[in-house]
Amino acid sequence: MTNSNNGNSVRTLTTLTWVPDFARGLVRDMRVRWALEEAGLDYEVKLVDFDQKKLAPYLSLQPFGQVPVYQEGDLTLFESGAIVHHIASRSAALMPADDAGRSRTLTWMFAALNSVEPAIGGLAEIDLFNAGSAWGRERRPAALERVQARLADLNRVLEGREFLLEQFTAADLLMATVLNNLRHTELVAQYPHVHAYHQRCVGRPAARKALEAQLALYAQAKAPQ
Amino acid sequence: MTNSNNGNSVRTLTTLTWVPDFARGLVRDMRVRWALEEAGLDYEVKLVDFDQKKLAPYLSLQPFGQVPVYQEGDLTLFESGAIVHHIASRSAALMPADDAGRSRTLTWMFAALNSVEPAIGGLAEIDLFNAGSAWGRERRPAALERVQARLADLNRVLEGREFLLEQFTAADLLMATVLNNLRHTELVAQYPHVHAYHQRCVGRPAARKALEAQLALYAQAKAPQ
Repeated sequence: MTNSNNGNSVRTLTTLTWVPDFARGLVRDMRVRWALEEAGLDYEVKLVDFDQKKLAPYLSLQPFGQVPVYQEGDLTLFESGAIVHHIASRSAALMPADDAGRSRTLTWMFAALNSVEPAIGGLAEIDLFNAGSAWGRERRPAALERVQARLADLNRVLEGREFLLEQFTAADLLMATVLNNLRHTELVAQYPHVHAYHQRCVGRPAARKALEAQLALYAQAKAPQ
Repeated sequence: MTNSNNGNSVRTLTTLTWVPDFARGLVRDMRVRWALEEAGLDYEVKLVDFDQKKLAPYLSLQPFGQVPVYQEGDLTLFESGAIVHHIASRSAALMPADDAGRSRTLTWMFAALNSVEPAIGGLAEIDLFNAGSAWGRERRPAALERVQARLADLNRVLEGREFLLEQFTAADLLMATVLNNLRHTELVAQYPHVHAYHQRCVGRPAARKALEAQLALYAQAKAPQ
């Protein structure tokens, strides 16, 4: 799908001024940066801080007060999955050209964000924010089991495969960033096909460049008072 | 987007033979049935039971052992969000025709499934499966607060609006089915714009027909031994 109206528009990514160490590399603007790098598209960065993102001007762009927001000419989008799809549907580097291939790519994009991410998010919520709580200790075994089930399924899918589809796509990009949220554990390494796949994805030059750009931003930022 | 290759293919939806009462109306095949009804497309139903869905033949279609699976000619898709998008991108009843409108529709589809559903799922997990647990009692206030924040955001967005975009779209369909997962609570009724919106969506003839079809299936099924 080409979109000649927006082909020469300035692309702007809005993301957080600063995040604590445990979140660096995990902020969801990473997904959009990576997609733009794979597609070979330039972008500008705008910043929003923790207070601003809950105020009316920002909420008019992003109703849940989250990052990132993506703007391209008159178009404003949020939700990293949707932004990555918007970019991918215009780039052969991120999605096959045929209708069936596009539908299959979106299937795995939703699988990453709706079947795998909620499981990993449940575990990360305990480990990163509630490690000392009684409820976290009681709940963790079930949360872990849910993640292990998803990783086992994914490991089976990825056996003998380089990527989820026949080529690298936006679905791999999203799945790899979802798996990044397990970096505080040794879990990914226990599933050899998932582990090799994850390394293959995050080792791509576009992924490294995107990560460096996110980390460089925080390296020069000051923590909020 | 038209797809002349698949225009006359048989459409098959695979879903669960039986679910307990608390899940009836909430099984995710509801989303696909509703989309097909809005688009005016016929479909056939295939059934899979709890044991079969964890075996190799079914896992080759749906790697996480979930329902639904959607088949259309040679194309097999899973993830309700992706299936609904596939149907919607071929039907003016579910998505605007212009590129920007399509990207905005997908933004709200991801918002429903990646920003709102995980919050509601966290609360439903406690209330429906862990109501008597110590961890559930300790965690519930924070899980509730997360849902309330999302509902407040959505209420602000929906003030003065009929639907999320300028017309009913696949995003409203998904958002309404996500809100259905709060039916065991009085929460939606506390947010007047969300409440009116939810009623408007689920009251559509296509939604009622889809729900009746799901309930009719379970009414005639026998509980597993």
